[in-house]
Amino acid sequence: MSTRTLVKNLAALPDGPVTVSGWVETVRDQKKVQFVILRDESGAVQLVNPATREVEEGADAEASARLATTEAISALAHGSFITVTGELKHDERVKLGGLEVKLASLDVVTAANPETPIAADSSLDKRMDWRFLDLRHPKQALIFRIQTTFLHALRGVWVEKGLIEIQTPKLMASASESRAELFEVEYFEGKAYLAQSPQFFKQMAQAAGFGGVFEVGPAFRADPSFTSRHATEFTSVDTEISWIDSHEDVMALHEELMVAGFQAVVDKHGAEIADLFGIELAVPSRPFPRIPLAEAKQIVADRGYVIPRADDDMDPEGERQISAYVKEAFGHDFVFLTDYAASIRPFYHMRHEGDPSLTNSYDLIYNGVEISTGAQREHRIDVLVEQARDKGMDPEELEFYLDFFRYGVPPHGGFGMGLARVLMLMLGETSIRETTYLFRGPTRLLP
Amino acid sequence: MSTRTLVKNLAALPDGPVTVSGWVETVRDQKKVQFVILRDESGAVQLVNPATREVEEGADAEASARLATTEAISALAHGSFITVTGELKHDERVKLGGLEVKLASLDVVTAANPETPIAADSSLDKRMDWRFLDLRHPKQALIFRIQTTFLHALRGVWVEKGLIEIQTPKLMASASESRAELFEVEYFEGKAYLAQSPQFFKQMAQAAGFGGVFEVGPAFRADPSFTSRHATEFTSVDTEISWIDSHEDVMALHEELMVAGFQAVVDKHGAEIADLFGIELAVPSRPFPRIPLAEAKQIVADRGYVIPRADDDMDPEGERQISAYVKEAFGHDFVFLTDYAASIRPFYHMRHEGDPSLTNSYDLIYNGVEISTGAQREHRIDVLVEQARDKGMDPEELEFYLDFFRYGVPPHGGFGMGLARVLMLMLGETSIRETTYLFRGPTRLLP
Repeated sequence: MSTRTLVKNLAALPDGPVTVSGWVETVRDQKKVQFVILRDESGAVQLVNPATREVEEGADAEASARLATTEAISALAHGSFITVTGELKHDERVKLGGLEVKLASLDVVTAANPETPIAADSSLDKRMDWRFLDLRHPKQALIFRIQTTFLHALRGVWVEKGLIEIQTPKLMASASESRAELFEVEYFEGKAYLAQSPQFFKQMAQAAGFGGVFEVGPAFRADPSFTSRHATEFTSVDTEISWIDSHEDVMALHEELMVAGFQAVVDKHGAEIADLFGIELAVPSRPFPRIPLAEAKQIVADRGYVIPRADDDMDPEGERQISAYVKEAFGHDFVFLTDYAASIRPFYHMRHEGDPSLTNSYDLIYNGVEISTGAQREHRIDVLVEQARDKGMDPEELEFYLDFFRYGVPPHGGFGMGLARVLMLMLGETSIRETTYLFRGPTRLLP
Repeated sequence: MSTRTLVKNLAALPDGPVTVSGWVETVRDQKKVQFVILRDESGAVQLVNPATREVEEGADAEASARLATTEAISALAHGSFITVTGELKHDERVKLGGLEVKLASLDVVTAANPETPIAADSSLDKRMDWRFLDLRHPKQALIFRIQTTFLHALRGVWVEKGLIEIQTPKLMASASESRAELFEVEYFEGKAYLAQSPQFFKQMAQAAGFGGVFEVGPAFRADPSFTSRHATEFTSVDTEISWIDSHEDVMALHEELMVAGFQAVVDKHGAEIADLFGIELAVPSRPFPRIPLAEAKQIVADRGYVIPRADDDMDPEGERQISAYVKEAFGHDFVFLTDYAASIRPFYHMRHEGDPSLTNSYDLIYNGVEISTGAQREHRIDVLVEQARDKGMDPEELEFYLDFFRYGVPPHGGFGMGLARVLMLMLGETSIRETTYLFRGPTRLLP
């Protein structure tokens, strides 16, 4: 491994020789002195080189080397990866971190094409075409550092609780959610379908007596829409636990996970988030407010917004309105909307005892947008089959799933959460395209 | 949440009232006394109930309840999930953990069908048909607890080193490895393909200046073979790091990850592994032995095995032989075979400086089976294009990938490792079907 020093570690070093590696962010090529801003994954540092513009005929090798270095810097294309050795010097007059490296030798590891295809003001679509360059911006890269920290904190909670990590198959023989949004795969002599969620398989783990499971993995929806919140492939954060009394137990776990995730992000990246996103990220307090959906719709109506939907569901503006209300009334960024109508929930959501028009379910709304759906599942096979029929589904097609319930299964529930949405809303971004490593949509499969 | 006590926590409790929940493993219905073995995700406990076979006419409610409980136990189908309250009693005469619970009340949460479709001696294929029942066996469930611990330890190392977790898309516009084993997806008006590995996308992160990345996610191969080591969908453990000098740096990281993973597994599950698998799992020592492939083939030949392949590769028996040699010579379960011929490596592996017939690559062999391929990648665009042409590939089709190298990229490398293979070999299993949550093969898409 090259013995380079990460830029973020320079501040703690005394003045003296160092090696740094990274890419060229800017070059200021003045007559007498050259400045290069070198950036690596941890930060940026100023390199300085007194220019040697010409040497006498017959000058010594050292002078020739100085000339070569000067010319190499003049020729440096932005984005080129370089390794530099030089003298670290702490100097409070240097704006960038109060230090600079006086260049002794320069190795251009790979030169970039001189013309950069995107600029700071390029459209989002153009930036996505050149995502690998877009991600060099500290702000874009920070998103994925935050995501790493967030996921690691969630997994820490799950592991601590003894839950089991599963990797469920993405190739299925039939639909897991709705036939309408299903991708079909040529599978040898037949067909397979891409999993729209790990729903059936994480429930299978409950029948297997696993007690509780989690998974962070891809899910696929053949959704032709082009909103800022939808993708054809997205990372779903899933968990499912046994022996619950109701969806309230799922919400309690959900809160605990979010608090742990936000705490870790605030601790590790709070200052950078304030710096690059202008956001003072706070850890949400528990419990998160809970509002039954019917009540939430009344609150929204009282605010003067009539939800233009024929079914019983919220719409995006309704979610924004109820979120605004919760922020005003409780000072909270999160709200659980509970007890959704059975008419707009999948067949496997458990219905209220005594009122089958409502389900033991919730959506979690964060800063005005739905990030997750959770529920207690129906584990009684006769009721489950009835509810599937109710939804116009053919129980025969669901045989493999229904079998999970025929040999005993504990009461259970869980949630699925869109990772990119959480990050989008946490950082005040306007599209999940910004918080997805490589976005996939109806017209985007590249890069 | 139900206030049940996990079975593993009973031992530490004093005698007294407890509630346990789980499924019925066995029932011994004797005339005077009934025994039920209840298992949950943490262990098994004996429940005991003095049988009440009949009550006098006009007996009190309590006596009727005792009769009802006795009859309920007699009717209990194996696998049914139950919640039991009763008196915990420590009694060293009880073989199972030195304790039992004297049953006070029994709630049959979900009754199982009385006929269990699989038995201990069922074929692997039959067991896979009923995977959710198969996974109730402590041995099968332990596999996924071990996997959870192993992955969490790996991620701990990556996070500690500052690597970034990425979720790369599984929907691609073209092949990432070989056209031959590519699944095709109907994608709106066109076609997409399922990623065979995150190779291109984890390299993209190096061009993006991420420094180092990791991913644990699905990979897909339309491989029609039915061996014990292949699946059409498998979990790939991937990492890629920048600023390496050679594949030696990748191997150093690989070793560090394996040692951390094995250490965590031994610490947390060593005793259970010994108990259920009869294996005394040890943490491998560093460094793992390294043998150049040419030398390994000579060693194998000297042992009397001639590899029946026309190309320069090892075959499975060759891998077993070299592993046996390493075990004899160095007492090690792991061996890095290095410097594979360019002819049998993908176009993106870097070739030796001075000998383009060899690559800066390795396979990691564990207990006789290849579990991973790693390499330094070629980051020089002109060389990379040349190597792609060499392999008969059309650089035009690789344009989006080749672009990653045109705007600067540091030297880098990484590996991909099959998770189910590691677990299979760690636990002495004979097929990855045993160590995959839900196996997918050419003729298996269910459950």
